[in-house]
Amino acid sequence: LKVFSLNSNRRLSEQIAEHIGTTLGKCTVSKFSDGEIQINIEESIRGCEVYVIQSTSDPVNDHLMELLIMIDALKRASAKSINIVMPYYGYARQDRKARSREPIAAKLVADIIETAGANRMITLDLHAPQIQGFFDIPIDHLQGVPILSDYFEGKNLDDVIVVSPDHGGVTRARKMADRLKAPIGIIDKRRPRPNVAEVMNIIGNIEGKTAILIDDIIDTAGTITLAANALIENGAKEVYACCTHPVLSGPAIERINNSQIKELVITDSIPLPAEKQVDKITTLSVAPLIGEAI
Amino acid sequence: LKVFSLNSNRRLSEQIAEHIGTTLGKCTVSKFSDGEIQINIEESIRGCEVYVIQSTSDPVNDHLMELLIMIDALKRASAKSINIVMPYYGYARQDRKARSREPIAAKLVADIIETAGANRMITLDLHAPQIQGFFDIPIDHLQGVPILSDYFEGKNLDDVIVVSPDHGGVTRARKMADRLKAPIGIIDKRRPRPNVAEVMNIIGNIEGKTAILIDDIIDTAGTITLAANALIENGAKEVYACCTHPVLSGPAIERINNSQIKELVITDSIPLPAEKQVDKITTLSVAPLIGEAI
Ligand SMILES: Nc1ncnc2c1ncn2[C@@H]1O[C@H](COP(=O)(O)O)[C@@H](O)[C@H]1O
Ligand SMILES: Nc1ncnc2c1ncn2[C@@H]1O[C@H](COP(=O)(O)O)[C@@H](O)[C@H]1O
Repeated sequence: LKVFSLNSNRRLSEQIAEHIGTTLGKCTVSKFSDGEIQINIEESIRGCEVYVIQSTSDPVNDHLMELLIMIDALKRASAKSINIVMPYYGYARQDRKARSREPIAAKLVADIIETAGANRMITLDLHAPQIQGFFDIPIDHLQGVPILSDYFEGKNLDDVIVVSPDHGGVTRARKMADRLKAPIGIIDKRRPRPNVAEVMNIIGNIEGKTAILIDDIIDTAGTITLAANALIENGAKEVYACCTHPVLSGPAIERINNSQIKELVITDSIPLPAEKQVDKITTLSVAPLIGEAI
Repeated sequence: LKVFSLNSNRRLSEQIAEHIGTTLGKCTVSKFSDGEIQINIEESIRGCEVYVIQSTSDPVNDHLMELLIMIDALKRASAKSINIVMPYYGYARQDRKARSREPIAAKLVADIIETAGANRMITLDLHAPQIQGFFDIPIDHLQGVPILSDYFEGKNLDDVIVVSPDHGGVTRARKMADRLKAPIGIIDKRRPRPNVAEVMNIIGNIEGKTAILIDDIIDTAGTITLAANALIENGAKEVYACCTHPVLSGPAIERINNSQIKELVITDSIPLPAEKQVDKITTLSVAPLIGEAI
């Protein structure tokens, strides 16, 4: 068994390797002068079960090509099996044709990973669980809810309500609520007429409660910060937020800092760059979870 | 027949469309806040023969993903056929395992383009013609030599010798020499012993002649500028250089400016950004050549 890290999650990879009692395989992943990726695997892997850890986070296309080229190299070097560990699966939101002539990039990514030669994939909180069906190879689909729930359980908060920021996330909120023995609420955004501002209608009794917002991805943080502010305006005592995948692009950090969110809890499925490490954010590691799955 | 341009070669694409008497199809290719590619095809293409123009030049991974996602969208929108026009084929230098555990990225790229759903490919001066065999779909392989030769023929240079900067390019130099009715020379780089500087041994009589160096790709311009300087030192009267694919990364422009090259002739298979448009460089368009092939 050999574990290699590409460039998206070096720190997490080291922790995963440590968790399973090994060290990372030697391999350099760099770029030629013209931007093409160059990979040198510096130890034999012939006949080995190989694990490659890479999230397809920003820069997503570079990270994806690193992965594909690594799989190609491993395949040609006679690895016994090539197992991909992808804590964050990029392009997952392009998972259906919502309008005419839209691509389904999440399926394309699945297809090209298989074409490159992967044999198995371990991933975490796919934006849509249906993406498992985009693959013909076995997928282990891990969940972030237990890690996030355990953290909040440790805080011993009083009178908690778990709130989903939209209809799509109710199942996830339900799972966390069960673990915390709390009720659930839903933010029911509606646009009464076209070109009229959205109304944040809150389903569930939040009066005087500690709300925990949960989502899978927080990207520009628009949804979650609007939801948090609506909860406070409508009588919640305080608002925590959490997610598995901290994409946190564009105005995200500024919005979070300026919002009513007291604390944002994330995982290291995508590493948080130093300039985004603000006081409000707490990071939990998925290394033990992934280590168990390997 | 519909022609779409992605982001690598907009200007060339317009010229190709003009050449075949049409205009480019409407389509926006942008990025979401987190760096994922977003493609909107803004006109129906159902039942159409579609041509997509894209070089996989720097940023190669972005350009490649734009292409793959576009192919996916066209396929799902019921295009009759999806024809890729790739003036420059990136990753072509990773075309064989020269050392243990090296990837063959040029084959990976071929495989994923086919997986995405391309039906045919038109390309120009592949770094190795063997890359045609990496595809199972039909490949039209165009050549830049006639365009480059015609340009030099128009200059009416006296006493020309066409020189290949290395052994790999002799066939190409031979073709140009035939068209210019000139002899050929070869730069025969050798390293007498390990850790001893390379010797630029010149095969062919260049004394007092006008040398034209030809290569397929000029990347950092190390090879071509060393070759040009060696030719002048060894008695050539003047040195021109030409190539199909002006990658021109890193120190390339500085090296060319400081070299004995009098004029560098390139094509627009990769667009030359404004900051690289220096006096010594002349650009020829491949639009008519590609227009004919469509
Ligand atoms: N990287 C992205 N950033 C922002 N929006 C996206 C991204 N990828 C897809 N989308 C859009 O997000 C929507 C799907 O998100 P959801 O409804 O949460 O599954 C679709 O309208 C997509 O066009
Ligand atoms: N993008 C690139 N930039 C520089 N060198 C490369 C690149 N891709 C591949 N190579 C190397 O170039 C050599 C092949 O070039 P060639 O011998 O001209 O076919 C191999 O040693 C490759 O490792």
